[in-house]
Amino acid sequence: MSGFVSFVGSGPGDPELLTLKAVDRLKKADAILFDDLSSGPILEHASAEADLVGVGKRAGRPSPKQNHVSQLLVDYAQSGVHVVRLKSGDSGIFGRLEEETDALKAAGIDYEIIPGVTSACAAAAAAGIPLTRRLVARRVQFVTGHDVAGALPGDLHLQSLTDPGATTVLFMPKRTFPALAEKLFASGLRRDCPALLAENVSHADQTLQRTTMSDLAKQLSSEISGTPGLILFGDLAES
Amino acid sequence: MSGFVSFVGSGPGDPELLTLKAVDRLKKADAILFDDLSSGPILEHASAEADLVGVGKRAGRPSPKQNHVSQLLVDYAQSGVHVVRLKSGDSGIFGRLEEETDALKAAGIDYEIIPGVTSACAAAAAAGIPLTRRLVARRVQFVTGHDVAGALPGDLHLQSLTDPGATTVLFMPKRTFPALAEKLFASGLRRDCPALLAENVSHADQTLQRTTMSDLAKQLSSEISGTPGLILFGDLAES
Repeated sequence: MSGFVSFVGSGPGDPELLTLKAVDRLKKADAILFDDLSSGPILEHASAEADLVGVGKRAGRPSPKQNHVSQLLVDYAQSGVHVVRLKSGDSGIFGRLEEETDALKAAGIDYEIIPGVTSACAAAAAAGIPLTRRLVARRVQFVTGHDVAGALPGDLHLQSLTDPGATTVLFMPKRTFPALAEKLFASGLRRDCPALLAENVSHADQTLQRTTMSDLAKQLSSEISGTPGLILFGDLAES
Repeated sequence: MSGFVSFVGSGPGDPELLTLKAVDRLKKADAILFDDLSSGPILEHASAEADLVGVGKRAGRPSPKQNHVSQLLVDYAQSGVHVVRLKSGDSGIFGRLEEETDALKAAGIDYEIIPGVTSACAAAAAAGIPLTRRLVARRVQFVTGHDVAGALPGDLHLQSLTDPGATTVLFMPKRTFPALAEKLFASGLRRDCPALLAENVSHADQTLQRTTMSDLAKQLSSEISGTPGLILFGDLAES
């Protein structure tokens, strides 16, 4: 007997930003594998009998090996139960979803993917700004600020990131931001390009800081906290 | 006495992809201004006393003037009630949100923005693919396929769109796609780049078609339906 896996995007953290479908799957799950970022009140939707298994990763802390998470997912599903794999934000954006779906495919286990509210949309909404603007910001892009080893990716497409007609949201950006900013300035991005640092998006302790790219690069050169954050930049960041 | 406006992203259409917060605001609203795309079962959350006002726009059909919608929003709020402005997907992505928030600011009316599941995430989830891939697709971008007049925007940033390391989702793309595809091929995008046409995303009549950029350009040259759709392209589109 084979089980079933629901990949569920839990949204940015505020339990009220769960979708109705996410709540339904949490209630029905026999086991929930969750990351730190999406735990807490969200798990209160789980049934009292469900196994709750933390497999979280956080910036700057050691992570469980990804293949260990995939194996755990396969093991639970093969025991014939309904498993929810809870991922913060939307599962398809910087969620390493494919490594887990590949493992399920290899094991012949069916799954579904339930989209969620990405933290990029939640950060912009909290700041009261849109991610696109008619005639001026017709492209919005999400980019990760670190590679598997936590370093700045070496193959960034700098032309895309310096385009003044785009709004850019950097995911997991804080440690590598000063180095990235220098590359962007060298490629033509203006140093006073508006930027927004959003931390603990949608949580009670959310902070939003409006700044510029050069000021933020200075700030993050001297101060590194483990608080999860996003950086949004482009003309819309100052609206 | 001044009212209050909640901009609510209704998600891609499936009423189960509403967030809990969206449902809460729909229940509390005295008036709901909605677009065609986000109507139907979603409005069943409204109270029996709420005014339901359709202000929808659909591709290829005449639209109410945007300033008329903004004025209606201001008028309702100034009557002292709680207004929900329902927008499909996430309000901040190609939702012309700013024109409406500007009108509210000018009138001194408070508002909040509640993020929603963007149809780009829902389309990828339905197709079983992520929007990013470790090492290979580190950037995801959302671009609109038409300008205010419905034509292909003249100032597309072609380098960004031909980057093989990105996943691109085109919003409202179908009419202008053949012309866009030609520009992309001329700028170096391979003609057999994998593409996915997703129509009626998350609705019961959803269709997903896996194809290539050149085949899709041919197809959309000869067939134009008013069905709302997204086009996703990049290596991930064939996974």
